[in-house]
Amino acid sequence: MSLILVSNDDGINANGVHALIDTLLPFGEVFCVCPDAPRSGQSMAITVNGPLRATYLPDYHGAKMIKVDGTPVDCIKLSMHNLLPRRPDLIVSGINHGSNASINILYSGTMGAAMEGCAFGVPSIGFSLTDYSPDADFSVCLPFVKKIVEWTLRNGLPEGICLNVNIPDRPSLPEECRVVRACRGNWDDEYKVYTDPHGGKFYWLTGSFVNEEPESTDTDEYCLSHGIASVVPTLLDRTAPIPAIPNIGQLNGKIH
Amino acid sequence: MSLILVSNDDGINANGVHALIDTLLPFGEVFCVCPDAPRSGQSMAITVNGPLRATYLPDYHGAKMIKVDGTPVDCIKLSMHNLLPRRPDLIVSGINHGSNASINILYSGTMGAAMEGCAFGVPSIGFSLTDYSPDADFSVCLPFVKKIVEWTLRNGLPEGICLNVNIPDRPSLPEECRVVRACRGNWDDEYKVYTDPHGGKFYWLTGSFVNEEPESTDTDEYCLSHGIASVVPTLLDRTAPIPAIPNIGQLNGKIH
Repeated sequence: MSLILVSNDDGINANGVHALIDTLLPFGEVFCVCPDAPRSGQSMAITVNGPLRATYLPDYHGAKMIKVDGTPVDCIKLSMHNLLPRRPDLIVSGINHGSNASINILYSGTMGAAMEGCAFGVPSIGFSLTDYSPDADFSVCLPFVKKIVEWTLRNGLPEGICLNVNIPDRPSLPEECRVVRACRGNWDDEYKVYTDPHGGKFYWLTGSFVNEEPESTDTDEYCLSHGIASVVPTLLDRTAPIPAIPNIGQLNGKIH
Repeated sequence: MSLILVSNDDGINANGVHALIDTLLPFGEVFCVCPDAPRSGQSMAITVNGPLRATYLPDYHGAKMIKVDGTPVDCIKLSMHNLLPRRPDLIVSGINHGSNASINILYSGTMGAAMEGCAFGVPSIGFSLTDYSPDADFSVCLPFVKKIVEWTLRNGLPEGICLNVNIPDRPSLPEECRVVRACRGNWDDEYKVYTDPHGGKFYWLTGSFVNEEPESTDTDEYCLSHGIASVVPTLLDRTAPIPAIPNIGQLNGKIH
């Protein structure tokens, strides 16, 4: 029987993680170890200069439920070292409330957890639904989540690669899935500026996503904007192809 | 005259950032925007659900000094949108107290800031010295830092690529630099378990780095362990080569 570790960045009370657990339970034993509160935008942050606590909650439909007062990556590390009864067969993060396509993967705690799972050498998947609302309806996408989990348990994943799966928010199951690359994009972000009651200034992040290659059809953003689910295989290693950089060879050699 | 934005993850009072500013001032105007306190291990975390404050401190040797109560990436975003007088020519993060070679780049706030600079399309570099102590001596490595900055201002960097520069801690300037790839490695981490005065259990992260390919000579870890400085060109885009994944094509197509 498979052991599956589940985490997320929206916190242990999020709808998305409960929908995910219900989908995973037929595959085996499920341990759910999530932040005790929402931790969006935590990327792969870890808690190095402070303690962590793990609190056991009542089981949910047979799954063990543990909350940790740390980041998504903390949840994976602590699970792997101290909380799980054995090495898991699969790590699944999400289902995130909101897209993690394109550049969003950089900031995503959901994908941070999946990449940490990948660093442990366990096949790992992050799932996101493009609906940011706390009461998003995950039910229609669950047959697709099941399909991806089945495929991954059957095939495994090469060392150092995890999956970033994004699902368009639709009233019915998306009809199609494509394996694509992450779109070039950016946040046209800005800070709303406020004045506090004592005259101090403070800033609050806002903004909207900008697709920098709207003409490309082989990207996750193209898929999502056309009602298609996207799978982006994602590397842990980030070394750029060295010959692609003009004159970089000048940096090789003696330092004077 | 160049405008250079400086940040770090060790906080605005760290020795490393002051050494860096002194090295950068001959190249132009320097704005230093750093976290108000150490934020190691923050990766690319951003503050989305709370306010940020920016506090102007006295100039340091002519550099503007601003502290922000957020993460390294928050510092870059807020600088780019609200604090800088114009778009910078270069973003430099560090000098970090400790290595960011191999897998450490994933968790590094220093490299988080450099990657965020890269996302803005500004040539960006993260520097790290392999000495974790708060009173590390950065002086011997500064001529090398200057050389990398000169090269980058002259050559620029391709879109979507930044530099992760690690410098071995030595009593004298490293004699050699190599442009290499990130080593496969991992943290043999573990949690020290404590009991609080009321009987509650808590965990604290510890561990040591494990080089997973000690025989390879073209990696940053090889360089650092042989007294050689390393430059790893680093990609923002993380899409894995899709054909490398067995059977992934099965996920393309209609969802039933």
